[in-house]
Amino acid sequence: MPCAVVLQTKISARELEHIKKYPNAKLISLGIGDTTEPLPDIITLTMADYARALSTAEGYRGYGAEQGNKALRKAIAETFYKDLPVKDTEVFVSDGSQCDISRLQLLLGNNVTIAVQDPSFPAYIDSSVIVGQAGDFEDETGKYRNIEYMKCEPQNQFFPDLSTTSRTDVIFFCSPNNPTGHAASREQLEELVEFARHNGSVIIYDSSYAAYITDESPQSIFEIPGAREVAIEISSFSKFAGFTGIRLGWTVVPEELFYSNGFPVINDFNRIVCTCFNGASNIAQAGGLACLSSEGFMVETLASVGLKVYGGANAPYVWVHFPGMKSWDLFTKILEKTHIITVPGCGFGPGGEEYIRLGAFGHRECIVEASGRLRSLFS
Amino acid sequence: MPCAVVLQTKISARELEHIKKYPNAKLISLGIGDTTEPLPDIITLTMADYARALSTAEGYRGYGAEQGNKALRKAIAETFYKDLPVKDTEVFVSDGSQCDISRLQLLLGNNVTIAVQDPSFPAYIDSSVIVGQAGDFEDETGKYRNIEYMKCEPQNQFFPDLSTTSRTDVIFFCSPNNPTGHAASREQLEELVEFARHNGSVIIYDSSYAAYITDESPQSIFEIPGAREVAIEISSFSKFAGFTGIRLGWTVVPEELFYSNGFPVINDFNRIVCTCFNGASNIAQAGGLACLSSEGFMVETLASVGLKVYGGANAPYVWVHFPGMKSWDLFTKILEKTHIITVPGCGFGPGGEEYIRLGAFGHRECIVEASGRLRSLFS
Repeated sequence: MPCAVVLQTKISARELEHIKKYPNAKLISLGIGDTTEPLPDIITLTMADYARALSTAEGYRGYGAEQGNKALRKAIAETFYKDLPVKDTEVFVSDGSQCDISRLQLLLGNNVTIAVQDPSFPAYIDSSVIVGQAGDFEDETGKYRNIEYMKCEPQNQFFPDLSTTSRTDVIFFCSPNNPTGHAASREQLEELVEFARHNGSVIIYDSSYAAYITDESPQSIFEIPGAREVAIEISSFSKFAGFTGIRLGWTVVPEELFYSNGFPVINDFNRIVCTCFNGASNIAQAGGLACLSSEGFMVETLASVGLKVYGGANAPYVWVHFPGMKSWDLFTKILEKTHIITVPGCGFGPGGEEYIRLGAFGHRECIVEASGRLRSLFS
Repeated sequence: MPCAVVLQTKISARELEHIKKYPNAKLISLGIGDTTEPLPDIITLTMADYARALSTAEGYRGYGAEQGNKALRKAIAETFYKDLPVKDTEVFVSDGSQCDISRLQLLLGNNVTIAVQDPSFPAYIDSSVIVGQAGDFEDETGKYRNIEYMKCEPQNQFFPDLSTTSRTDVIFFCSPNNPTGHAASREQLEELVEFARHNGSVIIYDSSYAAYITDESPQSIFEIPGAREVAIEISSFSKFAGFTGIRLGWTVVPEELFYSNGFPVINDFNRIVCTCFNGASNIAQAGGLACLSSEGFMVETLASVGLKVYGGANAPYVWVHFPGMKSWDLFTKILEKTHIITVPGCGFGPGGEEYIRLGAFGHRECIVEASGRLRSLFS
C-alpha cells in the first residue's frame, strides 16, 4: 500500500542496491528533509543546564502539564501569533506535528471524510488509512475511494480548483507545501477559509515550513479573517529550529471552533492530549523556550529604545534599521562604543545598506549583556 | 464521563476549594503518582553532553530511527529481558507507556472488544472510548457496555475469575497493578496466558511498575511460556528511573504474534510507529541509555572476577555478596585498599551481613574508575 513507511522502505532498499552496484560512487541523498546545522549555544546550553539540574533537589521535575509548560505556550503565542488573537491556552505543545496529525485523527475518528492536497506529505493519508477513513484503494487511479484529492500543480498555481472540489468534513492543507514548496497566497487562503466556512469543514493547517516564507504569504492560517471558526494549525520546531531529533512542535485549537452540536473542539483535543499523550520532553521544552526567548529578548530591548527591529521571531538573527546611515559606519560606531561585533547589512546586498544584522546565537548571558550595551548606546 | 481527564480535573478543583477553605493547612498530595528524587549524575551529565554536542557539527543529530536508537533498544532487551528471547528489533522505544497505549489502540481500531482489570489505570478505558470500542456508558453499573470488567479484589487475590470472564479480542493487564499495587504471581500469569491462548486474545501487558517488584513475581509477561504468541508488553522509564517529565518508555512486540489472518502484528506496529510517531527525543534516549549502561558496567566488571552480584538492572544500586565475610570488614578493606566509600550491607538489617552496596550514581568516568579498582582488588 502506498504509505510513507513503504515509500521510505522502498527508497532505502534502492539506496542499498545502488551502493552495492556502485561502491565507489559518492552518493548524495536529497531524500528525507532533515536538518543538519548545529544548534545555537543558547539552546543547547539551556537544555544542558536543565538536564543537569534534574540531579538536584531544586531542579528535579516530574510530570509537567500535558499541554506543555505555560511559559513555552505563551512564548509560542507571542512569537508566532503576534498581533493575532491566539491565546496561550489555545497552544498545545507536542512532540512534533506528525504526532499531532495522528492525535487529531484519533479525535476525528473513522466516520469523517477528508480532503488532501495532491501531492502532499504522506502522513495525512497514511493516518487516515490507519484510522479507517480512507476506504478502498483503487489501483487504476492510485487513490483511496473516500479521500478527496485536491490537485495542486503549476497550471493552477498549486492551489486547488475549489469549484470542483467535493465537500469533506476535514481539509488537510500544508503551506508551504511539502513536497511542492509552494506557499499559498493570502487570496488563496481567503478562498480556502471561505470554502470551509461555507461547507462547515475543518481545515487542519500544517505550517511546519512557515519559517521558510520570505515573501508576504501568510505564515499562519489565523492571519485570514474567519479562520478561527474553521481551522486548527499544527506546526513544529523541527525545520525552523533544527529540532527534528529533539522532538518539539505545537498545535493551536481556537476557542471559536465548535462541532456542529455546539461542543468546543478545544475541549475534545485537550482530552486527547491528556489521555493519549503526556507532554513533550521537559528538556526539549526548555530548549524551545530558549530558542524563542533569546531573539525575543534582543528584539524587545532594541525596540524599547525606538529602533526599527525585524527578524528574531523566526530566525536567530535580528535585523535593525537605521534610516539614513551607512552600514559600515554603524558597524564601526557599535564596535568602538560597545565592543560588539555585528555584520554590516550592505554585506548582504545593496538593499542591506542602512541596516546591521545581530546574531542571537550566543550564550544567554552574552545576549543579555550585549542587549544592555546596545540599549545604552542608542537610548 | 468517567475518564482520567475528568477525574484529574475533579481532583484539582477539589484541591483548590480545599486550599481556599483551609488556607493555612499544610496540604499533602498523595494523588498522582509522580517521581520526586533527583536523577543520578551519570544520566543528567550524559543528557547535558548530548545536548551541548548538538551545537557542534560532529555532534548534531537530526531525525533518528522512529523505533528508537539501536544501542538503546539493545540495552533494553539485554537489561529487562535477560535470559528471555526478546530481540532488540522487537523493542520499540516510545515517549512513555501512556502514549503507546493509544498507538496500540490506533492499531486495534474500533472493531475489537477489550477487557480490563477493575480497578485499573484509566488510560485503557479512556483510549478505548476515544477510539470507539467501548459502547454506551451505563449509569446503573458505572460500566461501558462493550468493555469486559475483570474484578480484582482482595477476595480473589486481585486476580480475575477467568472461568466467568467473557472472551475478548484484547486484554489489558497491568502488573504490578495501578492502583491496587498487586503484582500477579507466576501461576496467575500462566493462567492468564493460557486463557488468552485458548481464546485467541492479545494481552497488552503493562509492566511500568515492574521495578518495584521485590518478590519472585515475574517482571515481564515474557517469563511465562507461550506468552510470545499472545502478548505485547508496554513499559516505561518513568517510575523506574524518574523519567516522568523526560518522557521515555518502550513496547515489545514479539515476532511470534500474528493476526488471525497470519499477518505479523510487529509489522503493523512498526507502521504505526513510523506514521504516527517520529521517535522519542534523542536527548531522552541518551539519558535512558546512560541509565542502563552505568549499572550494567559495574555489574559486568564485578561478575567478571567471580563475585556474586545482584541488582544493577532495575536500580542504580549493585548488591555484592562476600560469603563468610562481615560487611564492616569489607567496607574497611575496600576503603583502605581502593579509597572507595561503599555501604556495609548490615546497615540495611541483619540480612545484609556479608554484603556491600555500591551506588552507581556517579559520573560515568567515576564508575569506570571505581570498577577498575574493585576488579584489581578482587581478581
